Amino acid sequence: MSEETPRSARVRLLDAAEEMLREVGMAGTGIKDVVARSGAPIGSLYHYFPNGKAQLVGESLQIHADKSRRLMAHFFDGKRTAAGALRSLFNTAADGFERAGAGKGCALGAVALDLMPQDEALREICRSTFDDWAAIVAPRLPFSNQRARHSVAVTIVAALEGAFVLARATRSGDPFRDVGESLAAMMPPTRGRRR
Amino acid sequence: MSEETPRSARVRLLDAAEEMLREVGMAGTGIKDVVARSGAPIGSLYHYFPNGKAQLVGESLQIHADKSRRLMAHFFDGKRTAAGALRSLFNTAADGFERAGAGKGCALGAVALDLMPQDEALREICRSTFDDWAAIVAPRLPFSNQRARHSVAVTIVAALEGAFVLARATRSGDPFRDVGESLAAMMPPTRGRRR
Repeated sequence: MSEETPRSARVRLLDAAEEMLREVGMAGTGIKDVVARSGAPIGSLYHYFPNGKAQLVGESLQIHADKSRRLMAHFFDGKRTAAGALRSLFNTAADGFERAGAGKGCALGAVALDLMPQDEALREICRSTFDDWAAIVAPRLPFSNQRARHSVAVTIVAALEGAFVLARATRSGDPFRDVGESLAAMMPPTRGRRR
Repeated sequence: MSEETPRSARVRLLDAAEEMLREVGMAGTGIKDVVARSGAPIGSLYHYFPNGKAQLVGESLQIHADKSRRLMAHFFDGKRTAAGALRSLFNTAADGFERAGAGKGCALGAVALDLMPQDEALREICRSTFDDWAAIVAPRLPFSNQRARHSVAVTIVAALEGAFVLARATRSGDPFRDVGESLAAMMPPTRGRRR
């Protein structure tokens, strides 16, 4: 057990916000519920996040986004084939989804579908993260045409976000497994690009 | 202009609920906002939907789901190749998304990512609709193996839902176009199955 420090209250608020974003989306993430879930003192919220919910959600989403970029770069590091990376990524997502109780989606997807016109800063976090994922994936794909690599990378990102939607609806990791397997199977044999 | 009838107030409430689900998700769909947007008299809400938000959202989502099934069956009616159906479906979604102001997602996806444990009836609407979409698509796919047809159909459904997520984040229909084009290009030449 770590001792109670100002930093730990801040981190716990961010963690609680991320968890709630993944469970019930942005609109469903009430600031009182975040504080209650975090166990942090109520006063710490406006101490660390003077701009309230917008700031807390923004910072939490940014942390989530940074983690997701590192994860994407881990799978698509060029050490495995695109098919192998796809299977690993989607099987890992499936197992993680089920281990977490089959009720947590992707915070970025949940926020994206709740965006209101005033949420421009949050939209930009979502947009740039999805763009970065596609930019990480594209160079690893076995298509000689750059335009095709980009489109297929966007498709992989979309299929990942959509697999969270289907997994939430079925309370099962199987949609990730189906998607990973069929995307892997649709990768053409490597031609002239490293596997 | 249609005259004010009890039925039109009911329909307007359902339409307003669907629109809000598509814009801000389930948690963001406040009952007062739905009533205000619908223009229906406030008294009509509990007259037509005595169980309040749960009932209104459920009926609205069911109508949305039924429309979506018909749309999916329209594109995958067996009169065009799988690649042609994919291009038409995703290009239509792209154009519709932009025409609607680039701020409306899929109500089913938005609800799925907001589901709480008590929302079992809504989850079942999402689950069965996604299942039905996949069941409509699978027989039209040019794969001889039934298991492959199922997995690819799930991938197409996931990619469609995920394209809404990316489109919301970019405020552009381009993710639908990228996904439709690359899924179409990944369909194998027809072998032994009708196009």
